[in-house]
Amino acid sequence: MRIALLAHEKFPDSAKTAVGVLRYGDHEVVAVVDRENAGRRVSDFLDDVPDAPIVGSMSDVPDPVDRLVIGIAPIGGGFDESWRPDVRNAIERGCDVVSGLHYFLADDDEFASLAAEHGAELHDVRKPDPDLSVADGVADEVNAEVVLTVGTDCSVGKMTATLELVQAAEDAGYDAAFVPTGQTGIMIAGWGNPIDRVISDFTAGAVEEMILEVGDDHDVVFVEGQGSIVHPAYSAVTCGILHGSMADRLVLCHEAGRETVHGYDQVLPDLDEYVSLYESLAAPVHDTEIVAGMLNTQHVEGDDAAREAVESFADELDVPATDPIRFGADEVVDFVV
Amino acid sequence: MRIALLAHEKFPDSAKTAVGVLRYGDHEVVAVVDRENAGRRVSDFLDDVPDAPIVGSMSDVPDPVDRLVIGIAPIGGGFDESWRPDVRNAIERGCDVVSGLHYFLADDDEFASLAAEHGAELHDVRKPDPDLSVADGVADEVNAEVVLTVGTDCSVGKMTATLELVQAAEDAGYDAAFVPTGQTGIMIAGWGNPIDRVISDFTAGAVEEMILEVGDDHDVVFVEGQGSIVHPAYSAVTCGILHGSMADRLVLCHEAGRETVHGYDQVLPDLDEYVSLYESLAAPVHDTEIVAGMLNTQHVEGDDAAREAVESFADELDVPATDPIRFGADEVVDFVV
Repeated sequence: MRIALLAHEKFPDSAKTAVGVLRYGDHEVVAVVDRENAGRRVSDFLDDVPDAPIVGSMSDVPDPVDRLVIGIAPIGGGFDESWRPDVRNAIERGCDVVSGLHYFLADDDEFASLAAEHGAELHDVRKPDPDLSVADGVADEVNAEVVLTVGTDCSVGKMTATLELVQAAEDAGYDAAFVPTGQTGIMIAGWGNPIDRVISDFTAGAVEEMILEVGDDHDVVFVEGQGSIVHPAYSAVTCGILHGSMADRLVLCHEAGRETVHGYDQVLPDLDEYVSLYESLAAPVHDTEIVAGMLNTQHVEGDDAAREAVESFADELDVPATDPIRFGADEVVDFVV
Repeated sequence: MRIALLAHEKFPDSAKTAVGVLRYGDHEVVAVVDRENAGRRVSDFLDDVPDAPIVGSMSDVPDPVDRLVIGIAPIGGGFDESWRPDVRNAIERGCDVVSGLHYFLADDDEFASLAAEHGAELHDVRKPDPDLSVADGVADEVNAEVVLTVGTDCSVGKMTATLELVQAAEDAGYDAAFVPTGQTGIMIAGWGNPIDRVISDFTAGAVEEMILEVGDDHDVVFVEGQGSIVHPAYSAVTCGILHGSMADRLVLCHEAGRETVHGYDQVLPDLDEYVSLYESLAAPVHDTEIVAGMLNTQHVEGDDAAREAVESFADELDVPATDPIRFGADEVVDFVV
């Protein structure tokens, strides 16, 4: 599949999704659409992702192109009308469009009728699958090992840790799949259920459905976790993913220095309490254990201090640990798969 | 408030909601509408609820009447067209209509325009409040003590236990409130959020919002629990209610003889594991403990065997216990409030 990434005036620093698709996506990116940087190349900005030309509009993207991904999200999730000619051009060329905006492209009269006319699909990834239902408790029946990232809090780097584990597992020779559960992960993967948007009764079922979809075709399935099991607002989503995935192994993600729940006063429990809580809560549904730790050291100054933080984190958890961005997930992948 | 209960051809045995409103509702029931039993009285069938006449149609219900409650639910949750004249008559008299059907009365063109014309409100309790949001983690700031019923499984009697505790607390002189979280509880109370239908990210927030709404006006608030924390499909809802309610005390509900999850193969953990799981999972958000047990002995033959089962349940939990239907919730209410 050949992909174009829309990122007008935001590439690369404010285009998290576009950069994520470049870094972790399975498909070839044929162009980034950014009117501000037209004529330059991805490699002028980023040296650790596949290169691609930057063009000024969708009409400058050469054929063939199969999919246009909206790679930026304005505050509020609205649709920027200056993008309309790009989306229109894509649809008229029969190119599918994937969007994570709150504004649903499929509900836009012009886009919907153009898409019907030209046989293009509009994927609004924030819109949950209407066919979801309650879990049957059968995710453990797939052939793959199921690995779930869990966290001490939200925004500690679970999606990044999961994607880095997928790459490290593939580098080590495994056939690995990524099961996305949040909007950015879904945009990167090009499929998935936004678990935090489904009906609460279907939380576990929405995860199970994805694992059943890919689990028999891979050696290992890495499920992107959400929130934390002690989060005052989001723990329901975390619990549903924990039980719905019936994970064989857990990887605990944490950010160095995080002491309270992001945006709340609540103090985080000790790390060994997280281990005990995640394992004892999962066990009645499916036995599992935390086999590795992922420490986000983005706010730690220098590699030496970061290495020390990772070692102390590993000691507290009593499992191998790494910072997947700074030191690589390959340091722990053999303990995870 | 004066209420009429629609229960055509189902009263009382297949009219769970109608009987629940009679038994636990705060408002005066002026008539049951059941064309099959017209001319008889509620007391001909039930001796432990307030009496009321049974009439053949809504047009036979005397004024004043403030609310018609649909007290039966056909399989599938559809609207039975034979009820249309009753609902029409209610609306034309300016009487609000409360329904837990999947078919939304407010989306019925005739009912919607009649309701607008006559100033009647149509409450479809399966439709979640569109203004719900994520929890702020502040349910513990209300003046009332918050008591939550939790369970070893779904369908063990949490709603009944909660409603019996409300009555026992009121009999003991407390000003008690009931916070409903499921459809039948909402129909009985006439308000509430159907937690299992809200967006998963708002699970805790939807509970918190209800506690904030009533918590400062009462001594004690009893929150109806849902599911179980180890349920393979519904644990997300349970976890969201546990953390969103920030309950001061928990009451553990169980059905005597239940050994596996209802409808699943999964074996239930030991009772002491439930105590440990509920308390340790709640603690990082709000400290709480299980202070009483409620055992549903409906499938135990005879009061002596039931009393033995309750005593053994209390011993295992190491807290006082009762069967709220067979022996009354007043046996434990002093330990709960």
